[in-house]
Amino acid sequence: MKAVRVHEYNKPPSLDDISEPTIEGPLDVLVHVDAAGVCRTDLHIIEGQWAEKSGVELPYVIGHENAGTVVATGAAVRGVTGGDRVILHPLVTCGLCRACRSGDDVHCSDSEFPGINRDGGMTELLRTSIRSVVKLDEGLAPADVAALADAGLTAYHAVRKAAPQLHPGDQVVQIGAGGLGHIGLQCLLAMTAARVTVVDRSPDALEKAKTLGAHSTVLSDGSHVDSVLEQTKGAGAQIVLDYVGEHGTEAEGVAMTKNAGSYFVIGYGGHVDVPTIDMISREISVVGNLVGSYNDLVDLMRLAATGDVTLSTQQYELNDALRALDDLDEGRVPGGRAILTN
Amino acid sequence: MKAVRVHEYNKPPSLDDISEPTIEGPLDVLVHVDAAGVCRTDLHIIEGQWAEKSGVELPYVIGHENAGTVVATGAAVRGVTGGDRVILHPLVTCGLCRACRSGDDVHCSDSEFPGINRDGGMTELLRTSIRSVVKLDEGLAPADVAALADAGLTAYHAVRKAAPQLHPGDQVVQIGAGGLGHIGLQCLLAMTAARVTVVDRSPDALEKAKTLGAHSTVLSDGSHVDSVLEQTKGAGAQIVLDYVGEHGTEAEGVAMTKNAGSYFVIGYGGHVDVPTIDMISREISVVGNLVGSYNDLVDLMRLAATGDVTLSTQQYELNDALRALDDLDEGRVPGGRAILTN
Amino acid sequence: MKAVRVHEYNKPPSLDDISEPTIEGPLDVLVHVDAAGVCRTDLHIIEGQWAEKSGVELPYVIGHENAGTVVATGAAVRGVTGGDRVILHPLVTCGLCRACRSGDDVHCSDSEFPGINRDGGMTELLRTSIRSVVKLDEGLAPADVAALADAGLTAYHAVRKAAPQLHPGDQVVQIGAGGLGHIGLQCLLAMTAARVTVVDRSPDALEKAKTLGAHSTVLSDGSHVDSVLEQTKGAGAQIVLDYVGEHGTEAEGVAMTKNAGSYFVIGYGGHVDVPTIDMISREISVVGNLVGSYNDLVDLMRLAATGDVTLSTQQYELNDALRALDDLDEGRVPGGRAILTN
Amino acid sequence: MKAVRVHEYNKPPSLDDISEPTIEGPLDVLVHVDAAGVCRTDLHIIEGQWAEKSGVELPYVIGHENAGTVVATGAAVRGVTGGDRVILHPLVTCGLCRACRSGDDVHCSDSEFPGINRDGGMTELLRTSIRSVVKLDEGLAPADVAALADAGLTAYHAVRKAAPQLHPGDQVVQIGAGGLGHIGLQCLLAMTAARVTVVDRSPDALEKAKTLGAHSTVLSDGSHVDSVLEQTKGAGAQIVLDYVGEHGTEAEGVAMTKNAGSYFVIGYGGHVDVPTIDMISREISVVGNLVGSYNDLVDLMRLAATGDVTLSTQQYELNDALRALDDLDEGRVPGGRAILTN
Repeated sequence: MKAVRVHEYNKPPSLDDISEPTIEGPLDVLVHVDAAGVCRTDLHIIEGQWAEKSGVELPYVIGHENAGTVVATGAAVRGVTGGDRVILHPLVTCGLCRACRSGDDVHCSDSEFPGINRDGGMTELLRTSIRSVVKLDEGLAPADVAALADAGLTAYHAVRKAAPQLHPGDQVVQIGAGGLGHIGLQCLLAMTAARVTVVDRSPDALEKAKTLGAHSTVLSDGSHVDSVLEQTKGAGAQIVLDYVGEHGTEAEGVAMTKNAGSYFVIGYGGHVDVPTIDMISREISVVGNLVGSYNDLVDLMRLAATGDVTLSTQQYELNDALRALDDLDEGRVPGGRAILTN
Repeated sequence: MKAVRVHEYNKPPSLDDISEPTIEGPLDVLVHVDAAGVCRTDLHIIEGQWAEKSGVELPYVIGHENAGTVVATGAAVRGVTGGDRVILHPLVTCGLCRACRSGDDVHCSDSEFPGINRDGGMTELLRTSIRSVVKLDEGLAPADVAALADAGLTAYHAVRKAAPQLHPGDQVVQIGAGGLGHIGLQCLLAMTAARVTVVDRSPDALEKAKTLGAHSTVLSDGSHVDSVLEQTKGAGAQIVLDYVGEHGTEAEGVAMTKNAGSYFVIGYGGHVDVPTIDMISREISVVGNLVGSYNDLVDLMRLAATGDVTLSTQQYELNDALRALDDLDEGRVPGGRAILTN
Repeated sequence: MKAVRVHEYNKPPSLDDISEPTIEGPLDVLVHVDAAGVCRTDLHIIEGQWAEKSGVELPYVIGHENAGTVVATGAAVRGVTGGDRVILHPLVTCGLCRACRSGDDVHCSDSEFPGINRDGGMTELLRTSIRSVVKLDEGLAPADVAALADAGLTAYHAVRKAAPQLHPGDQVVQIGAGGLGHIGLQCLLAMTAARVTVVDRSPDALEKAKTLGAHSTVLSDGSHVDSVLEQTKGAGAQIVLDYVGEHGTEAEGVAMTKNAGSYFVIGYGGHVDVPTIDMISREISVVGNLVGSYNDLVDLMRLAATGDVTLSTQQYELNDALRALDDLDEGRVPGGRAILTN
Repeated sequence: MKAVRVHEYNKPPSLDDISEPTIEGPLDVLVHVDAAGVCRTDLHIIEGQWAEKSGVELPYVIGHENAGTVVATGAAVRGVTGGDRVILHPLVTCGLCRACRSGDDVHCSDSEFPGINRDGGMTELLRTSIRSVVKLDEGLAPADVAALADAGLTAYHAVRKAAPQLHPGDQVVQIGAGGLGHIGLQCLLAMTAARVTVVDRSPDALEKAKTLGAHSTVLSDGSHVDSVLEQTKGAGAQIVLDYVGEHGTEAEGVAMTKNAGSYFVIGYGGHVDVPTIDMISREISVVGNLVGSYNDLVDLMRLAATGDVTLSTQQYELNDALRALDDLDEGRVPGGRAILTN
């Protein structure tokens, strides 16, 4: 079968012919990948940024945002059968460690991450586990939701953590309204009655945020922190959700956080650097956020099924994977997510 | 000044001429009552149902849903001044007991309840405390929001307690879509992404609930519990909000609650009667709900200011108070709340 | 192998020779039952009280509080091996449903309950699942902890749910200081700084509670509700934990609950019957409690390992099972738990 | 009356004769300061570190840890009367802002801080408010508890925030076992069943921690982070409570925090500096902690009343205030708190 494989870092991957995976364990599920999201992380992998962290052996198949159709199941699998359309949680987890048993499977002590540390989904068939398979609502097509499997799930998870702290009318500032941010915005509007101000350096992204329902938008032009503080009478926001996490948003995010409020780190690349006296005298929290759990993905699929969360995508044939990666790298997938279909 | 006073139980109140209240303590606020909600509880008071519980001495002025304009303030009052338009929290609380200091002022150990246990708001001037005064957003008129001061606040409070337990798509059943229920429904839709099924015995109330955004409605016709269970594949709802609390809804509410879920009692008049083996084997909770706190009222006013919560009202002159009480008693205030304006 | 089997309801079980279970599925674990708790529920099973609810087919092996030594494991089992000493969570759960994935495996939608609805542990070998096996700390012997598998786990779970609501010095009332109660008391004292008053009708049980650290004890003699209210200046307790749940404790428990507090139902047999106006005006919650989760059992084993929770037991040979059941029925296992060893 | 006043920064304060304060507002309470804690912050004030932040005008009276006897009360004061022995919450709060009404009075939008931004308690009489006065249990003397008013309250507050995240046996690491730390340790042991490892660079402090009940101690000698990680099989602690917050503990604290755990900043002076990719991939939270609320102080007094929290103090006459400050500065108040009595 065809597969997009990385052979050497800093070289384009190639479209190889590889042998098909098969059911190996009793809980395995074999899925035909109908749609695979192309993510900025794939570019980072190719650049070798994840080489050490993942420890993966080359060559291997990338692709960690996958949705498709069940082809075969292991002996102990219950709940899905061949033909079912599914989205795949990005991790394959053990189900037995304390984290898995606490509803926090993302911190599983014995997990795999297909597309990161073993063969992933930019191919025809992917072996995963019954623990990672969410059945899709009839109205949802794999190509429409694949990009929610990782990017969207991260945004949802952060919003879900923030929501219980938000009363009606409480101020939220969201930094970044791109890939993750515009999904997070939709989740926030669906799940809370908070007032949302979106900060971004792209007028187009702000325009889109406005269309999606943002109560206010502020162009990131150097005076945006002052603008937000002015809007909030100097107090700042109860919650700041930072989908960027670099290039200075870390300090700006803290500056826009209200005393006793929380700054949520979702994007990455930079540093959070806060004097301990400020942490204390302002009693703020800095909250890291990883991808969501399996149950979070189920919930996000519910939001997708009701239309509360929608995604604009640009589809490519699996054969055109290299062009899709290229388009993403060159900024030719504006306002959307590239999806490989097969 | 004119005032609607109860002189004897089971007799209609009379419109009396009484002397005006004045500022007595340093935290007092004197408010001109522009709008006073007429509530079913006023009828119950007249019938003497609250005589023993309130211990109030007759004659006295009823009216516990009040909004108006500040006329004068005590020496230590800060934050409001004459001319400010305000809605009044129904309780006058001490601010010093553990409950008040915990954000739970409704359980203040030393509170008064104007209109229930001392002179209330169906008159021209009402003395309250700075602890009970919420300034209105410019876009809100006293007559539009007065009925939110007690009825609406109770519904909001229950929804606020339930919201953290609700994930997107989780099933809620709401019993009753009348005065409190239709406000609670709007709160629920604004604050969560839950799926709401409304049960009522009035097709008109269901029609209105549908218009407000209920995802599903079920006529209370004897087979409604079965219908709800069928809709939920036998599981029932994560949260049941019962705005009726009598005539059998107590048992029906428990029956429609999912295992490990909660049945919220908001309306009253009946009995919750559950075998302890069912409480345990199903691990359900039965949760009582009183009126909301001062901060809850602030939040509800934010929902009113954004239009997330609206209320249809029928206005009467204060002079026509007896007619308004009569209309309410005779069912001539359909789908709305009677408001005395002045 | 030998096994205690019920053949007919309302007849004593018999000690039969049955064939040994074997590993059937990839996640199975075969355990030699070194110690099996004898519980009042076993008497109820024999009396037929569970016949309809469990739907079990006779004859079958009873025994749902089991600890022992791993003998064999299925192909996909990781984490335990032959020779490991373990305690068994009473349920065998699926690990895949929403409840299991939320840390709430007790509400698994596809679970079994060995000893209740299929063959249990009053025998030599028991087939369970890797999902139900907790490895024991070196210092803990199966016979010392077996009775914690169900009775103790239920008490722990209720206390764990109550603990976050308890500030230092907050008043707790615990009704019943017998089998479950004296474990719950130890958990409460280890996990909170609340003030605990124990109510029981047995002076001996109260004496023991005092020894374990109860701050106050009240004999259940008819005036106990008044005594507790007097102790709390009329307010009642923030949390009432009722390990009895019948014979009037249901109403007494509610009466001793503070406004805005919670009455926890743990024991059963009676009815909770509260007017909805009381639920509301007092804003109390009635909270059902089932057995704890797998993680709860891990936590309880930690409390056992540190000596925070201890249990007095009376041991019998498996051959003497009928005598043990008889002794329990006749009240000849005072202040302790009967354990079958093998 | 005598008072310890700062006249010029970086000069020793002087013992002045000043006029007595009087009741000014209806909620004022005049307290004879029987005991005033001498705190490291007083040294920082004298050094001018707080000059800009507090904006206080010189000369003024320092002292922000006060306990004593009520002398007079304003017209609207209820609940305390002359002769009552009290401890004073360090802030004088408004009681009307959203924070005060939420149980979070420390973030009052209109508060004063006697001893920091206006005349404090190293004198004979202090004017405070009924909102700041906690009546002492009969068994507690002002000199025994004064130091709990600020230092102790900060430690309690952090522990109270951490406690709901801690299951029995969960690992806590506490950095620093000095003034705040040894109080926090006692709170932690009383309020949770967590396993506590204390890290300090003083063998004496570790010895004391051991005596108070710490489960394990680690000398801060350069290899302590490795030691802690080794103790926890590489995982780190669910909660790290850092009572130091400078000299490298910030990075060490983060390093010792388990994935999905929290690092609590309590001490200050340094910087928290964490790459956003670590915040995210490890999903940790960094939690700032300020002094506790009024209700927290009530709870801490309950722990003091039961003996769960004790404090070793070194008493000085008010006349010897300068000597006390000197002793503190020179490290001559080992393992205890200096208290001025009067």
